[in-house]
Formats: sequence, C-alpha cells, structure tokens
Amino acid sequence: MKPLLITLGEPAGIGSDCIIRAWQQSPLLFKHCIIVAPAIWLTQRATLMGMEISIEEHSELQHMDASKQHSLHCWNPLAATIAVTPVTPGSPSAITAAAVVACIEVAALACLDGSAAAIITGPIEKAVLRRSGFNFPGHTEFLAYLARARVDLACDQMDHVMMLASKQLRVALLTTHIAMSDVAASLSQEATLHCLHIVDHDLRHRFGIKKPSIGFCGLNPHAGEQGHFGREEIEILSPAISLAREQGILVTSPLPADTLFSGPMREQFDAIICCYHDQALIPIKALSFGDAVNITLGLPFIRTSVDHGTALDRVGLDTVSCSSMLAAIEMARTMAEIKIQERNSSDSH
Amino acid sequence: MKPLLITLGEPAGIGSDCIIRAWQQSPLLFKHCIIVAPAIWLTQRATLMGMEISIEEHSELQHMDASKQHSLHCWNPLAATIAVTPVTPGSPSAITAAAVVACIEVAALACLDGSAAAIITGPIEKAVLRRSGFNFPGHTEFLAYLARARVDLACDQMDHVMMLASKQLRVALLTTHIAMSDVAASLSQEATLHCLHIVDHDLRHRFGIKKPSIGFCGLNPHAGEQGHFGREEIEILSPAISLAREQGILVTSPLPADTLFSGPMREQFDAIICCYHDQALIPIKALSFGDAVNITLGLPFIRTSVDHGTALDRVGLDTVSCSSMLAAIEMARTMAEIKIQERNSSDSH
Repeated sequence: MKPLLITLGEPAGIGSDCIIRAWQQSPLLFKHCIIVAPAIWLTQRATLMGMEISIEEHSELQHMDASKQHSLHCWNPLAATIAVTPVTPGSPSAITAAAVVACIEVAALACLDGSAAAIITGPIEKAVLRRSGFNFPGHTEFLAYLARARVDLACDQMDHVMMLASKQLRVALLTTHIAMSDVAASLSQEATLHCLHIVDHDLRHRFGIKKPSIGFCGLNPHAGEQGHFGREEIEILSPAISLAREQGILVTSPLPADTLFSGPMREQFDAIICCYHDQALIPIKALSFGDAVNITLGLPFIRTSVDHGTALDRVGLDTVSCSSMLAAIEMARTMAEIKIQERNSSDSH
Repeated sequence: MKPLLITLGEPAGIGSDCIIRAWQQSPLLFKHCIIVAPAIWLTQRATLMGMEISIEEHSELQHMDASKQHSLHCWNPLAATIAVTPVTPGSPSAITAAAVVACIEVAALACLDGSAAAIITGPIEKAVLRRSGFNFPGHTEFLAYLARARVDLACDQMDHVMMLASKQLRVALLTTHIAMSDVAASLSQEATLHCLHIVDHDLRHRFGIKKPSIGFCGLNPHAGEQGHFGREEIEILSPAISLAREQGILVTSPLPADTLFSGPMREQFDAIICCYHDQALIPIKALSFGDAVNITLGLPFIRTSVDHGTALDRVGLDTVSCSSMLAAIEMARTMAEIKIQERNSSDSH
C-alpha cells in the first residue's frame, strides 16, 4: 500500500482538530497515512486542545515509512520554499494561503506520479484562497485542473463528478455550486450522459461493484408529471438515459426524487444521480450520522474529503466531531485496496 | 367531538383499500369517523380483497351516530342526486368523476358550516377529474376555493400552505407543483411573509404549540453563500423574515437546507419552511416510515390527507399500506381535540 496523503486544508479551521481527534480515537486507521503539512500546525492545535501528540516531520515523501502508528507522520513539502508562519485559530489569513494551496498541489502530484495511493482533503476557506489568487471554485476543480495538465482526459465539459457516500447512500451530482435559477439551463444531454459514464465506471472500478444499478432523480416535482411541471425530464434527461442504456449502463428513468429517496426505493440502487446540490445533500445529510464522505469521481486518482467546512467558530472545542474525517480515511483506504485487487487480478489473467 | 369526515378519493384507486385495512387494523381509531361515499364502493372493494366488513349507510349526516365501531359508517350524500355507477378497480372513469367531486364538496361544506370537525382526504386521480371539468390543480386548491366562497380570507395570493408532518418532522412549502425553472421567479416577499404568518398561526392553534420555532431553508446551495450562488436569500427571503420577526414570529435566517435537515439541527424546530416541493418532500419521505401526513394550513377547517397517490396498479393487493391513512386520521383527531381544548379554555376566561 502506497501512502494515503491527508491535507488539513485551512490551518485556522477545524481540519487539524479532526485529524488529531481521529488519530487519538483510531490510531490504527492511520496506517500508511501521511499528513501533508508543517508539523507545527498540528502541535500548536494539540496544545490548544489540551492534548499531547507525537509527530514525526519529514521533508521528502520518498524517505517516509508510515506503517507504524506510534506517531503521526507529517510530510512538510514547504520547508525549502515557503516560510511557515504562525496560525491564529479561527482566523484564516492570506499569509498562509500559498502554503495551503502548495500542500494540496504536491499531494495531488504525488498521486498523479504514482508515489501516493490517494488524497484525503480537509476543509479549505475558499474566500481567503480566492483573495490570494486561487482561481477555482473549490478543491475539486483544482484537482481536476492538475489532472488535466498531466493526463489526456476525454471530456472537458464534465471530467469529474461530485459524489457523497455514507453507509446508507451514495449520491452523485449533475450540477454543484450554482444558483437554483441556473440549474435547469445548465442541464444538457451531453453532460448527463458523461456523468452517467463516470458514475458507472467508478462504481465498477473504485467501489468494486460488478453490475452497478443507478437511480436517476428528475429535476421537477413528481419528475415533471409527464411534462405538466417542466419538460427537462422529457427533453434532456430521458434521451441521455436512453443512450446510456444502449451503451450498457443500468439506470432508471427520471423518477420523483422524494419517492427515490424513501426507504424501500433507495436501497435498490448503488448510487442515485441528482440534478442539483440540495437534491443530493439533503437526503444524505438527513440519513447519515456525520459519516458522509465527499468523493471526486472521474479523476485519475482517488480523492475523498470530509463533508463539512472549516467551522471557524468551533476550532479547538470538544464538540468538534471527527466522524467524517474517519470515514474519509476509511473510504480512501478501501478504494485503494480495490485498486490493488483489480490490478492483481488483471496481472494474473 | 363532531364527526371526522373521510373521503376516499378516486373509487378505482387504493383509497378504499386504505380505509378498509385501517379499520381492520385499528377499529377504535374510527370513533366519530364517517366515510363520505356510497357504501357499495367499499363493500365491492372488500370482496375483491377477500375481506368481510360491516357497513351502515345513511343519506343524512345529522342522523348519524359514529361513536360505536362495530361497523364502518358511510354517509352517502349522492343518493338523491347522482346515480352510483359501478367501479372497475384500477381503471378510473369519467363516469364517477362527478360523484368523487361531490363527496369532497359536501364534506368540506359540512366542515365550513360547523357540522363536522375535520376532513381527511384519500387520493384522487387528477387527470380524470380535470377531463371532467374539475378546474383545480388538486384537493388543496379546491378546498381553498370552497372556503373563500364562504369566509372572508385575508390574502388571495397565499391563503393556504401545504404542510407534511410525520413523527420526525414538519415541513411547509412556499411553492408546490411548479417546474423548478419557475421556482426562483415565483418567490416574493409578500408570499413569504404570508406563509410565515400561516405556519406560525397554525402551529399555535392547530398543533397547540405556544411559542413555535420555525427553521427556514434558503433556496440556493449553502443558502447562496452570501450571494455567490443566487441572491434570493438576500433580496426576498431575508427581508420577509425580518418583517415577520418584527411581528413576533420566531424564525431563523435562510439556512443551508442540507444542514437544516441534518439530525442535530432539524430537532430544534417545530416546522421547517422550504422554498420548493422536493426540498420539503425529500427529507420527510426519507426520514418517515410511511406515516407522513399532508395537512393544509390556513383553511378555516381542519384538513389532513394521505401522502400518496391512487396506486392504480396495486388496488386490492396485500401490499397496500394503510399507515398514512391511519396517521392522517390520528392527526385530524388530535387537531380537532386541540381546537376543542382551545375553545373550552377561551370560554372559561
């Protein structure tokens, strides 16, 4: 198993809290895990939390052995290039923005060049990074940009899909962080078909599901009720679904979202594709117990993430939960193991 | 306690199945309940289901005593006016459409003139009724129309609010059965404020909650994130909420819907107002166990309804669940009892 790289995101946010709590709670889960950050960001936070932790810091990934869990292992790739400045808990600063972005970038590049197995990202403070020249809506688009620069990807329009997964449910999103008034106009047959391909592919190869079954939510109430309340199901979604079926993908027609997420229905599917953010996020957060994980499908490497933000007002508090961080690490490890099995299996044929 | 009137809706649908099963399962729940329908619709269905039921049919509400449950009590208001024609299970017919509408209308009028305590509606087949000249999107608008004709209601724009309630959650809707591409343009400060007043009023007077606390969902992902993904929160919802607060209503700012419906948050509120159909229906159906009830707020009488449709393909089958019918009857009775208590309490002051 190659290293699983964890970025803590905004150092003034709860990313460090989550990592420290997760390690205290489940040190064995951290086998092969390496935090990509200056160790001092974690030791300072541990002090604030009234905890003691043992950390080993290295400046080169290749010399690290993270198979033992007596300490947290930090890879600080900044040592030679970016000065590590102090962090004020709860107050993100533009001064650390370059370091935050550099940690994510080196972690992604290590995944791309094959020296790491996966990246697990903590929450960033997007507004602060944007003001410092980071021109991406979030992690996902940045990682897709880095991947595109290295790998010949098929489709520019949708080369990645946001998925959230918990023990109960997997949901994938056709559109993400856009105004609701723009959603209908943002749907297209091409993007819908591409999303279906990515979800089907990654359910097979990232989740090890041999014959994935996909549920599809209509955009409109009652999935439009035969066009009475909107025609996107008829004009955009259904034609794309028909093409996907011809290409061997097992997927439902656009169904009323409220029916699809009710108990008896949702259990029939390996994933449910949603037309917009809240259609996916409402049910997964309502049904999960803080263990939902954000996964980027369609990238040439494994990426999982916590499903929460920086929670600046709760930094250092006892009430910070590490359940999403634990789930994100566990999910990345499982996906990395499936990849190894798949490779072994194809080698033996 | 005045009678609780149950309309079975489309006689070819599962309305009769639900009533028969509910009565078999919980006959005591039917105290004071009267089915507004020709008895033959129920006896024919019972035969199809292989069940025997005892029914008493009357043609005048005022002569009925529904305090005992050895039989189901039917009020058939059609006797003198509309011929009762045979029903083909699973195949709605235009021939019975006038009778279906008449049953709903007389039940509502009985509530309006004070001879009944509540109406509980089974599912209608809207397309069939529409083809027969019923010019309403559904029950709710028809009942509101009947009420407006009798009562001087304050606001034409939104004189009723659709609520769904289960043991876990109550959700109220700002917009209902419209295309998603029309939702943003349908929101207004005036309608938002009016909805807040109706929800607050009915939580007090229909549910007996002395100081209701209301959660409010933003329209956009992350409630717009300070205007980054949509400005409806800033320009429409928040100003209406500010006015409502000045008028003594306890309500949150527009919050991200996925956060609001997560476990720790949703439990803090007596009801959550949603901007559109699926924002409300997804979480309530995901979290309930078939016991969600549709309630119309803002009417001058109590109205509850099952939360499902006519399920024409399942008429007569053992798999038809009566849980929503049981919950709708129970909810109507509780609301009627609260009304009696409130009246007694104001009489004694």
